[in-house]
Amino acid sequence: MSNTTSLDAVKSSFHQYVYDLQEAITQEMLAIDPALKITEDNWERKDFEGNDGGGGRTRAFSGEIFENAGVNTSLVHGKVAPDFAKKIGGTTNDMWASGISLILHPHNPRVPTVHANFRMIQAGDKFWFGGGADLTPFYPHTEDFQYFHGVWKEACAPYGTYEQWKKKCDEYFVNFHRESEMRGIGGIFFDHFNTGDTEKDKAMVCDIASHFIRSYFPLVLKRKNEIFTDQDEDFQLHRRGRYVEFNLLHDRGTSFGLKSNGRTDSILISLPARCKFTYRYTPEKGSPHEEMMKYYLPQDW
Amino acid sequence: MSNTTSLDAVKSSFHQYVYDLQEAITQEMLAIDPALKITEDNWERKDFEGNDGGGGRTRAFSGEIFENAGVNTSLVHGKVAPDFAKKIGGTTNDMWASGISLILHPHNPRVPTVHANFRMIQAGDKFWFGGGADLTPFYPHTEDFQYFHGVWKEACAPYGTYEQWKKKCDEYFVNFHRESEMRGIGGIFFDHFNTGDTEKDKAMVCDIASHFIRSYFPLVLKRKNEIFTDQDEDFQLHRRGRYVEFNLLHDRGTSFGLKSNGRTDSILISLPARCKFTYRYTPEKGSPHEEMMKYYLPQDW
Repeated sequence: MSNTTSLDAVKSSFHQYVYDLQEAITQEMLAIDPALKITEDNWERKDFEGNDGGGGRTRAFSGEIFENAGVNTSLVHGKVAPDFAKKIGGTTNDMWASGISLILHPHNPRVPTVHANFRMIQAGDKFWFGGGADLTPFYPHTEDFQYFHGVWKEACAPYGTYEQWKKKCDEYFVNFHRESEMRGIGGIFFDHFNTGDTEKDKAMVCDIASHFIRSYFPLVLKRKNEIFTDQDEDFQLHRRGRYVEFNLLHDRGTSFGLKSNGRTDSILISLPARCKFTYRYTPEKGSPHEEMMKYYLPQDW
Repeated sequence: MSNTTSLDAVKSSFHQYVYDLQEAITQEMLAIDPALKITEDNWERKDFEGNDGGGGRTRAFSGEIFENAGVNTSLVHGKVAPDFAKKIGGTTNDMWASGISLILHPHNPRVPTVHANFRMIQAGDKFWFGGGADLTPFYPHTEDFQYFHGVWKEACAPYGTYEQWKKKCDEYFVNFHRESEMRGIGGIFFDHFNTGDTEKDKAMVCDIASHFIRSYFPLVLKRKNEIFTDQDEDFQLHRRGRYVEFNLLHDRGTSFGLKSNGRTDSILISLPARCKFTYRYTPEKGSPHEEMMKYYLPQDW
């Protein structure tokens, strides 16, 4: 792009997109779960030099269908620490970032947990996009996994990115300390995406992000009234424990956010309301949960 | 010390000490909680070059008084990766380490959780000791906190180390991402302890470690039948969530163990059986739990 005006327009349009998406997702959740309580916190931050650094809109949810959930947007800007600028490859100490990040932990173990985020970052005069969506089911409804991946296949089809981004997702959400078991069944994941045409890249990322609602909420509607057993819940709570392990031990966004003095409550909104840890936990032999374990390794869906 | 024989004798005597302490603690737990189930796993490891590298004895517990607990010993030796040798300050790539590590999560929120470990490490021709004990209570029984610290004051009195080791403990078990709230009320913590007389140091560390049983089990006996409320349990489960945050985000032993391909199940035995996470969790105003919060900042006991 040739001038500042159009760059600013792209940035502003991306942020408006994720801000609207946050509201659209909130409305979907409310329609499914009328008991849903929403806590909205608008927060501000200072940049590295103590000047206005933007802020965010955090929405925390708890309800009957969604036990706990967070759907956050933020728009941050300003100076960053020189070390950090170098680390993220910025050409100056100026940074700008906009994004949406969400995680939904349903109560019923037959309904999968979902995570997604889409972000645009500027460091100095470099731009890039990152994001993705991944599913963490607790019951071997394999047709649901095919459905979720199917939507993302469609989303990526015009751009030819599904195969590569699906692989990156399989490689990223991994509990390396647990024999490389994934935290879920994957989805898509991309980072440092930049073809050189920021406006086109923005349009593409927004187009892909627009598939989130269709990728997930139909599964909630399909499964939310399914009867579940104590064993289902016990398995879910243990898998949520693995989710916590991944987020606190391996997730780059979490550790970066906490180390860079981000807003702790907004970052750790990703943790599940309840979870369990048991020494050498293994699901019962012959159970659907034992079957589920094999889907936590990369598969073609 | 002047020769290999006496060094070997000190190492062997330290390991025998922690091995016996593991058994003594197990017996205390069984006496208090006759329903206690014990899972013992004896494991072996290979060193960096694929040769015999020692192993350990992991004991996992679950019962009525102790919801979950782990009391582990290990004796590992052999070659380490050159980078790692450099990192720990070894003069060669040879390493030897013996230690006990334990964590007990009682069911009743009126009974505190406890953690302790004592270890001896040799890297090349350098030796040092590390360890400590710290308490995580969930109810403002301040006389119990005074008692726990009192025993460790006595334990350290002959050596004049309490003030320094208490301070180190206050500085170590901190959730820096949670406004520097401690995970509990501290205790003692020391590392790289070496006066130059390994035999004397060993005797001192064993003498101090021998106070563990008296520092903790009387509190369990005093509180185990105390009636507790749902609010007490809710507070305990949220504080256990903070315990998980500390162990996975900040604890050097945990991250080192996992990154160096340690035995995951033995390392993560420290996590509580159940815990909770709630966005912007705060205890009720005027409750004992709100009072308890102030003791998670350094205090003189």
